[in-house]
Amino acid sequence: MKILLIGANGTIGSAVDKELSQRHEVIRIGRTSGDFQVDISDSASIRALFEQTGKFDALICAAGNVTFAPLGEMNAQHFALGLQDKLMGQVNLLLIGREFANDGASFTLTSGILNRDPIRSGASAALVNGAIDGFVRAAAIELPRGLRVNSVSPTVLVEAMDSYAPYFRGYKPVPGADVALAYAKSVEGLQTGQTYIVD
Amino acid sequence: MKILLIGANGTIGSAVDKELSQRHEVIRIGRTSGDFQVDISDSASIRALFEQTGKFDALICAAGNVTFAPLGEMNAQHFALGLQDKLMGQVNLLLIGREFANDGASFTLTSGILNRDPIRSGASAALVNGAIDGFVRAAAIELPRGLRVNSVSPTVLVEAMDSYAPYFRGYKPVPGADVALAYAKSVEGLQTGQTYIVD
Ligand SMILES: NC(=O)c1ccc[n+]([C@@H]2O[C@H](COP(=O)([O-])OP(=O)(O)OC[C@H]3O[C@@H](n4cnc5c(N)ncnc54)[C@H](OP(=O)(O)O)[C@@H]3O)[C@@H](O)[C@H]2O)c1
Ligand SMILES: NC(=O)c1ccc[n+]([C@@H]2O[C@H](COP(=O)([O-])OP(=O)(O)OC[C@H]3O[C@@H](n4cnc5c(N)ncnc54)[C@H](OP(=O)(O)O)[C@@H]3O)[C@@H](O)[C@H]2O)c1
Repeated sequence: MKILLIGANGTIGSAVDKELSQRHEVIRIGRTSGDFQVDISDSASIRALFEQTGKFDALICAAGNVTFAPLGEMNAQHFALGLQDKLMGQVNLLLIGREFANDGASFTLTSGILNRDPIRSGASAALVNGAIDGFVRAAAIELPRGLRVNSVSPTVLVEAMDSYAPYFRGYKPVPGADVALAYAKSVEGLQTGQTYIVD
Repeated sequence: MKILLIGANGTIGSAVDKELSQRHEVIRIGRTSGDFQVDISDSASIRALFEQTGKFDALICAAGNVTFAPLGEMNAQHFALGLQDKLMGQVNLLLIGREFANDGASFTLTSGILNRDPIRSGASAALVNGAIDGFVRAAAIELPRGLRVNSVSPTVLVEAMDSYAPYFRGYKPVPGADVALAYAKSVEGLQTGQTYIVD
């Protein structure tokens, strides 16, 4: 399979790359790194990406930014980044990418644990994660040509604990290699409309 | 309790009004109807509302618009209404309303079944409902002064089947009076961060 991996250089993306490049052609995409560049918060940039990559069999997004801030300091502006970037960025990868997707291709988006098991400063992340999981459930049933869409919802990764530990006290981190398996299940399996939880 | 009920004239709102006005002072609010008017998609309108109503013990939002359209015809623009109105409208009712909320006051938002049990044309609704349920889970743990927030996630109402039946074939509708009980549980109980499902 030809797999477009957005965020290939990141904590999750590099684990997914390691798992899937053993069996597939992985095209590595980042904001500044990788074989191709994209800013998922910008529809025009997404379209330009697909015009460069051409058709594909699977798209994985392991990228997406949200604002972390104490709820007491947040107003609507603090939610805008998450809506534009992690949420609509990933939705747009499907809405635009479907034109470039081969029959039976899959889309695998990334949400995360915070809508299930919240932390302080995580209101925007929780909102966005819930939105992604809800979107894939509904979008899946309307996709034509055997196209599929799932999300992966991991807890914090072992490899991210250097910087994230203070926010995730008491959370048992999972190895990136285990998280990567959920992406493999989404891409190499046949299910659709699923949220694969990795806790 | 002094309860602000946004969408009091609607299908859900009128059932909630009937349940809660037996025991509480219900202030009826609509876009054009009611004691006070607000457009929840506009932050300035929300602030103007609270300046008129003054302090309150509970806020219920049974209002919120999203675009229903076949996924095949949707682009990012079709998601904008849901993000601005049903989603950020309700989030903003909390972000702005908390300044006017008495200690121990509750916020009860409305999501819906479509992120759990999707229908055609429901991708934006599913996205928004998932976002609301995720937001309340996280926001609840950061609210000060005993403030609470929950969502109610009903299936289609008996009273809405006149217009919605073609979209909800096979769904067993629930009476508005049963849905209203979930709002009463949220307002008159003590739980927070919950999504009350009424199926
Ligand atoms: N790390 C965790 O423990 C964890 C757990 C659960 C969920 N998640 C979620 O998983 C996603 C990835 O997290 P991560 O920790 O792996 O991220 P990361 O290590 O910071 O890497 C992010 C990757 O995404 C790319 N990227 C960032 N913004 C982009 C944009 N607007 N458009 C295109 N590419 C962009 C970066 O490109 P460059 O390399 O070129 O900068 C990088 O390759 C996030 O949504 C995060 O919330 C992470
Ligand atoms: N009906 C169902 O079966 C059902 C099931 C699950 C979830 N829901 C959700 O519940 C919510 C209410 O649904 P409903 O069927 O009860 O609605 P509805 O009968 O159409 O009534 C909507 C109410 O909200 C007010 N309103 C509409 N847009 C507004 C805005 N931008 N700002 C402030 N007020 C606004 C209207 O005011 P005016 O009266 O002044 O126009 C009206 O009172 C929606 O989010 C819907 O998705 C409904």
